[in-house]
Amino acid sequence: MDKKSLQDRLRRIEGQVRGLQRMIDEDKYCIDILTQLNSVLAALKAAGLGILDDHVRHCVRESIEEGNGDAKIEELMAAVARLAGK
Amino acid sequence: MDKKSLQDRLRRIEGQVRGLQRMIDEDKYCIDILTQLNSVLAALKAAGLGILDDHVRHCVRESIEEGNGDAKIEELMAAVARLAGK
Amino acid sequence: MDKKSLQDRLRRIEGQVRGLQRMIDEDKYCIDILTQLNSVLAALKAAGLGILDDHVRHCVRESIEEGNGDAKIEELMAAVARLAGK
Amino acid sequence: MDKKSLQDRLRRIEGQVRGLQRMIDEDKYCIDILTQLNSVLAALKAAGLGILDDHVRHCVRESIEEGNGDAKIEELMAAVARLAGK
Repeated sequence: MDKKSLQDRLRRIEGQVRGLQRMIDEDKYCIDILTQLNSVLAALKAAGLGILDDHVRHCVRESIEEGNGDAKIEELMAAVARLAGK
Repeated sequence: MDKKSLQDRLRRIEGQVRGLQRMIDEDKYCIDILTQLNSVLAALKAAGLGILDDHVRHCVRESIEEGNGDAKIEELMAAVARLAGK
Repeated sequence: MDKKSLQDRLRRIEGQVRGLQRMIDEDKYCIDILTQLNSVLAALKAAGLGILDDHVRHCVRESIEEGNGDAKIEELMAAVARLAGK
Repeated sequence: MDKKSLQDRLRRIEGQVRGLQRMIDEDKYCIDILTQLNSVLAALKAAGLGILDDHVRHCVRESIEEGNGDAKIEELMAAVARLAGK
């Protein structure tokens, strides 16, 4: 996921969050708002996984190639644990 | 969680999503962006739980009091399952 | 989900956890072990949602019908939040 | 997390799953069973993260050092996505 496609995703997510505000203004049915909110959660999580993927392919890989991957791997696994909702 | 406080939360979340875009523009470190993204995920999930809570306290409760809670309970549990990431 | 079918599920989950131990004993490939572990997580979460569903259909509903649902709803939403990994 | 400590964890998780069956047999309160089930979910997820951590520190790292990390990184990120409940 390159910078441009990540920005596109985040702009779409921003629009979805505004959509949620509109649904609340218009007193839409709670369950429909929740369904929409779940889509935003999924899109945001997918963006996070995209950032993580890019981080492993470049930053972590290069550190390992240069022989000092330990700290990067430590940091990576902490980020994975947070994203996995540990 | 009333309508006003829910809107306030969503506006804050919208601002946080714009903050993520700014971090990417400024080439911030991936792991810092991910930490911020995790905060947005948590805030959004909390908003979803707030909506669900309100739904149970009013809509589901009233349906049960009127003697026809079955469909509402069915629908509620499907929403809980989706939010729990089943 | 009745008591018998819940017990059946949990016995299957117990068997799956023993299966994980066997995979580790036999030095199976990490990613295959993880795939199996994800199945156990999903099965356990489904059992949790089944318990919750039953709780709402009986315990919460009856409290509301008797006019004192507040405490039960409070308790329910705390359980939902924990299961949703808030 | 070495093989022995992972096995210890899984044996404890197996015991916790049997504990859940006992709670159901004894008709314990749903919310108490759910609280216990959430502990099992957390313990199982922690075991999964431990397996993943070990996998990155050895298998993925060695592949990268040998100059062919691409397939391993691909596979790793798919496993992370599944564990993160994408």
